[in-house]
Amino acid sequence: MSVPHLTTALTGPLLELERKILAAQPEIEHWLRNQWQEHTPPFYGSVDLRNAGYKLAPVDMNLFPGGFNNLNPDFHPLAVQAAMMALEGYCPDARRILLIPENHTRNLFYLQNVAALAKILRQAGMVVRIGSMNPEISAPTELDLPDGSKMLQEPVIRTGNRVGLADFDPCVILLNNDLSGGIPDLLKNIEQTLLPPLHAGWAVRRKTEHFAAYDRVVAEFAQIVDIDPWLINPYFEHVDGLDFHAREGEEKLAATIDTMISKIAAKYAEYGIDQTPFVIVKANAGTYGMGIMSVKSGEELVGLNRKQRNKMSVIKEGLEVHDVIVQEGVPTFETIDDGVAEPVVYMLDRFVIGGFYRVHTGRGIDENLNAPGMHFKPLAFATSLSTPDCDGSPDCEANRFYAYGVVARLALLAGSLELEEGSL
Amino acid sequence: MSVPHLTTALTGPLLELERKILAAQPEIEHWLRNQWQEHTPPFYGSVDLRNAGYKLAPVDMNLFPGGFNNLNPDFHPLAVQAAMMALEGYCPDARRILLIPENHTRNLFYLQNVAALAKILRQAGMVVRIGSMNPEISAPTELDLPDGSKMLQEPVIRTGNRVGLADFDPCVILLNNDLSGGIPDLLKNIEQTLLPPLHAGWAVRRKTEHFAAYDRVVAEFAQIVDIDPWLINPYFEHVDGLDFHAREGEEKLAATIDTMISKIAAKYAEYGIDQTPFVIVKANAGTYGMGIMSVKSGEELVGLNRKQRNKMSVIKEGLEVHDVIVQEGVPTFETIDDGVAEPVVYMLDRFVIGGFYRVHTGRGIDENLNAPGMHFKPLAFATSLSTPDCDGSPDCEANRFYAYGVVARLALLAGSLELEEGSL
Repeated sequence: MSVPHLTTALTGPLLELERKILAAQPEIEHWLRNQWQEHTPPFYGSVDLRNAGYKLAPVDMNLFPGGFNNLNPDFHPLAVQAAMMALEGYCPDARRILLIPENHTRNLFYLQNVAALAKILRQAGMVVRIGSMNPEISAPTELDLPDGSKMLQEPVIRTGNRVGLADFDPCVILLNNDLSGGIPDLLKNIEQTLLPPLHAGWAVRRKTEHFAAYDRVVAEFAQIVDIDPWLINPYFEHVDGLDFHAREGEEKLAATIDTMISKIAAKYAEYGIDQTPFVIVKANAGTYGMGIMSVKSGEELVGLNRKQRNKMSVIKEGLEVHDVIVQEGVPTFETIDDGVAEPVVYMLDRFVIGGFYRVHTGRGIDENLNAPGMHFKPLAFATSLSTPDCDGSPDCEANRFYAYGVVARLALLAGSLELEEGSL
Repeated sequence: MSVPHLTTALTGPLLELERKILAAQPEIEHWLRNQWQEHTPPFYGSVDLRNAGYKLAPVDMNLFPGGFNNLNPDFHPLAVQAAMMALEGYCPDARRILLIPENHTRNLFYLQNVAALAKILRQAGMVVRIGSMNPEISAPTELDLPDGSKMLQEPVIRTGNRVGLADFDPCVILLNNDLSGGIPDLLKNIEQTLLPPLHAGWAVRRKTEHFAAYDRVVAEFAQIVDIDPWLINPYFEHVDGLDFHAREGEEKLAATIDTMISKIAAKYAEYGIDQTPFVIVKANAGTYGMGIMSVKSGEELVGLNRKQRNKMSVIKEGLEVHDVIVQEGVPTFETIDDGVAEPVVYMLDRFVIGGFYRVHTGRGIDENLNAPGMHFKPLAFATSLSTPDCDGSPDCEANRFYAYGVVARLALLAGSLELEEGSL
């Protein structure tokens, strides 16, 4: 397995933060075990992390992860084992699962993700079939995959309070469709187990609620590890009532940005960090890297030209953005193949099952990498995120990735709290 | 990872048995999930399998597995994840675990096993220390390991109804000591969680009880997969009241052997198998490959010379053998590096976490391989036992190993029933 090149900052001695996380490992795992007794983990999730050297923080948490095809195949057994456990927890008696993906029938990368996910579920012992809500899939349709295999997608059918396929009555429905376009009537009030629940979809979910839950998780965690919560938590604020086309709310947004820039600058001064503070403005229900700007002052948001306003105001499914999260920008100090990189950690149930680096050679350390031109480094992790080698050198890569796995699981726990609170 | 050479019999098309097991995967996994709802799996276990081509069966099940050092390091994360789950099930609040190994302080292979096991537990988030019941360890003692590291073993101390170390009060005690010499007073009636329970030790446990439980497991499983139970289950009989030195019971033992040879011959005729039937006679509480003979007729057991009688009559800790299991011999058709090989599958909680081949270049396909001169092929499994690739060719190696993982888990389930019934 090739090991990614990391910048000097990361091949140097372990940072104080990571050292503290490693030293507290038994307390951390014990605390997490207890948290998972009280809170049900989401079925799955992926977390975008940023490692700035002085700070390691989640910047986004996806409850409908794509990209399973980008995971290291060596970790596949871990995913199968975790899926077995998740299914045992949710519905021990389940045999048949219906996977409902996004409507992207022509995006081969996405279809490979669906195939990878179906394989995990199959190997966990499920009968898996793929149901589509895409109006174009009005009959069973074979789609070609790049490896020469085929994927059968069939129209989802509702009968009374059950959904399934024409000849398939599943016990569990697994959504890999983030419901950005709204909650379809097809899925409302069904009697089968639906994972994740409907309110996990972007029709309902808001990033600010996730990060509010993350604040509470971090408050408790930071005490255990004895760290400044800021070291693993980006500042955020919620701004709504915006209309980018009508230029409504620009001043309020600019003021929020400037206040946050000052707070970040104060922290940088406290820690002697020689960086220019920046913030990320994101659509509060946005995904796919759409509706995102990186700015260094509020005035950058005032008087946007039409192209910029269009970019900020429309997200997936053509929805208008009136509601944003202003989030502290965390520069990423990791580079791979001369591209700026950020780790994405994947979890199934409460277990880290792999990850990859999102790499962009055309973007800076303070920019969104989830953008056209990005690529993935599927073999990025030298060893599994849950196995630091405490016997060896504290600077070995396994240890670095343990810290990533911990922070990702904190975000997952926040996802769990968020779903509990938001239940419809 | 190097892939072991398998004989022609095994690189050929998948056998009917394995094909049926693969085809029934969703039913098998569903059934196993339900079994684990009703029965708690042993904390850990290893199973010796024999693959005769026409038959795939467990021949021994160890509830105190050594050999964790022989597992494929690539599967280490699987073991850590399974250990997390096991500990969550038994004692979610646990932080500190005391590992009590065998008294072999000079067996470097065994010490490496203890180190490997401690590493798994540590990475699952436990504070792990090693307590010895060896009278020679009367003070904290550092033992040298081959990799240059050191292992600290400390005397186990009892205080009231708790055991621990001088400055360590564990929540859980994990035995890696099979208690062949009897149940020590030190461990009786302690209030901490003790894994596995005392009656799992060879002071109490009997192979015949294990295989009686396995009979019941197989009876149910064979119906699900629609196979002759014999294809995964060796015949066995219990013979006691023996005294090899005084030549008492020889005739009864010989008669039992001959009856079993006839039953095996009838099955061989039914399936057109061109093999000479044989049986294995083993001490009913024996381990370490001691007290074992492979015979083709009862008369081989009558009139043993003194050396042979000594070999059969004494097992670990110098105990006398009065009680044996007569087990159908399953020839192994697997070879690696010109040696006869049998797979050993390791499980933690209800999950397969790896395995290796036990190889012996000086033994035949109908002999016990657990004998001086054996070696291990730690990288033996091409892929994890729980992930058959149902999308690819049914003949790929991953599929072969799925069947191994299923049969090993049936033996584990039998271990679970056995422990429930035998509880003190």
